Amino acid sequence: MSTTAIPTQKEVFDLLRNDLVAIESEFERLSGSEVDSVTEIASYLREGGGKRIRPSLLLLAAKSLGYVGSSAVRLGAVIEMIHTATLVHDDIIDGAETRRGRPAANTAWGNSKCVLAGDWLYMQAFRVALDERDFRILDLLIQLTQQMVEGELLQMERLSSLLSEAEYYELIDRKTACLFRVSMQLGGILGGAPPELDEQFGEYGRHLGLAFQIVDDVLDLTASEEVLGKPTGSDLREGKATLAVVHALKRGTAEERAEIIAALEDREFNGPRYARILATLERLGSLDYAMHAAFAHAEQAKECLANLPDSEYRRALLWAPDFVVARDK
Amino acid sequence: MSTTAIPTQKEVFDLLRNDLVAIESEFERLSGSEVDSVTEIASYLREGGGKRIRPSLLLLAAKSLGYVGSSAVRLGAVIEMIHTATLVHDDIIDGAETRRGRPAANTAWGNSKCVLAGDWLYMQAFRVALDERDFRILDLLIQLTQQMVEGELLQMERLSSLLSEAEYYELIDRKTACLFRVSMQLGGILGGAPPELDEQFGEYGRHLGLAFQIVDDVLDLTASEEVLGKPTGSDLREGKATLAVVHALKRGTAEERAEIIAALEDREFNGPRYARILATLERLGSLDYAMHAAFAHAEQAKECLANLPDSEYRRALLWAPDFVVARDK
Repeated sequence: MSTTAIPTQKEVFDLLRNDLVAIESEFERLSGSEVDSVTEIASYLREGGGKRIRPSLLLLAAKSLGYVGSSAVRLGAVIEMIHTATLVHDDIIDGAETRRGRPAANTAWGNSKCVLAGDWLYMQAFRVALDERDFRILDLLIQLTQQMVEGELLQMERLSSLLSEAEYYELIDRKTACLFRVSMQLGGILGGAPPELDEQFGEYGRHLGLAFQIVDDVLDLTASEEVLGKPTGSDLREGKATLAVVHALKRGTAEERAEIIAALEDREFNGPRYARILATLERLGSLDYAMHAAFAHAEQAKECLANLPDSEYRRALLWAPDFVVARDK
Repeated sequence: MSTTAIPTQKEVFDLLRNDLVAIESEFERLSGSEVDSVTEIASYLREGGGKRIRPSLLLLAAKSLGYVGSSAVRLGAVIEMIHTATLVHDDIIDGAETRRGRPAANTAWGNSKCVLAGDWLYMQAFRVALDERDFRILDLLIQLTQQMVEGELLQMERLSSLLSEAEYYELIDRKTACLFRVSMQLGGILGGAPPELDEQFGEYGRHLGLAFQIVDDVLDLTASEEVLGKPTGSDLREGKATLAVVHALKRGTAEERAEIIAALEDREFNGPRYARILATLERLGSLDYAMHAAFAHAEQAKECLANLPDSEYRRALLWAPDFVVARDK
């Protein structure tokens, strides 16, 4: 990697390649159970992939402080197992039919087995984390999981209802930003971060997570089904008001508001209605508004690294926020 | 309590009354969440009651070794929260309509919220246990939970199929005996049990748990709906072969076996068919066989206390196995 310029995606990936491969094997090894359906469901979920952005953050945080031990790979797998456990329970709750372009696990194995497979993944993640024999790690992970579960319940309570912007932020904080924050903090613990840096790592992760989720929510409205691996407008169809929609509901005409509210309540709509809603979001600048919020959080994330000594890992962390807001899938 | 005789149920209850009341308040306090549906579902489940036999074991084990601190109450609440979390997920999986004579939580709040409420209770239990800052406690609880979840998955895989006796025992070990074992071991940890006694406490709990579940399974076949708080024969209706049924399937005539197998596969049957199956179990001595197995485990449980110094708590522990096998609900 160049010693001065912001790196490319390939350079960052090369930097972490070996560790990410090791995390993948560790995840695979740890998902093996004597109970066949656990192994099957966990393998299916693992093979579904994902960007592995959370373990990458953990690796970069730890390595930016000179960490060289093997715990980063194990905890990277722990983070990915917890993330996977939340996804499988969320898909049950949302009645999701697809995830990352494949049938959701609940459609293949049924809800019952997926409830238990999710439980098992949580426990396995805690078991591996417990082996680190560090109470700070366990405190972070248990609080995290509880916050995420509460977030999903809050989201259910607020479906089809008119969110304030603060309520939207609370939901995405719990849904996404918490896990980004904890990934950074775990890296900080491994690297022996002093308290101030621990705080800054956490804030970096939180802002990056907020930017990530806001962009995700915009893409859900604008990207094609082919790119998303699920139908465009899934959030609206599930009754979820995201930032652009929250913005439009404050600023639209009575007629525009009524149309969006009807879509949130009906949980289904046809192509012409969706096209009209998208046009409203465009007209009101709601999509731009959301993207600007994402850019602002990306900038705030970068500012949190001001005190971190320069290294290729720090440069990769500086690159991540720009990558997150520039991605198109 | 008398200093020599085996105590009565009232004497044992009096001995633990204050602590059980404290565990109840602790459970109530710990089930309060800023997310309303968590608090509602957790309160509903807690108020559903139950025999609180698991925290009682923890208290008796700790107190039999002279323990006087407050951790026994907290860990008693933890054990009851974990037990409650498994019940709410199990009820979703079994599609249960009633639990302890009331509508099951999933019928009132729906499966989605109950998946999350169960997750939350697990995490809350771990969070409270984590505050004890004792890795042995966390190791026991995490392994326990994973074993129970695997047990429920194994049960699903084996529904409607012909179990061997060994397979039946593996299922009830995971479903019930593990939690009884861990309850005793947690009490042992608090009381500072030396390794040999820790082992004996664990074995006491395991045998008591096996006896408890075998009797539960017999009662499911023989007790009235009024007494059970759920329909008689629920296990058969859910495709679950329990010990008496496993016995009858080995010894019955071809016709008797066919009738039982049909009931397990159909998952529903009428009164006359159920009466014929019960008559078969009686004729083959299958219910007696199961009860004898329960008595044997109750005796083995008592033998595990041979090295424990005499006290009113030890006497209560000696009383529990007889109580468990003699109960009619």
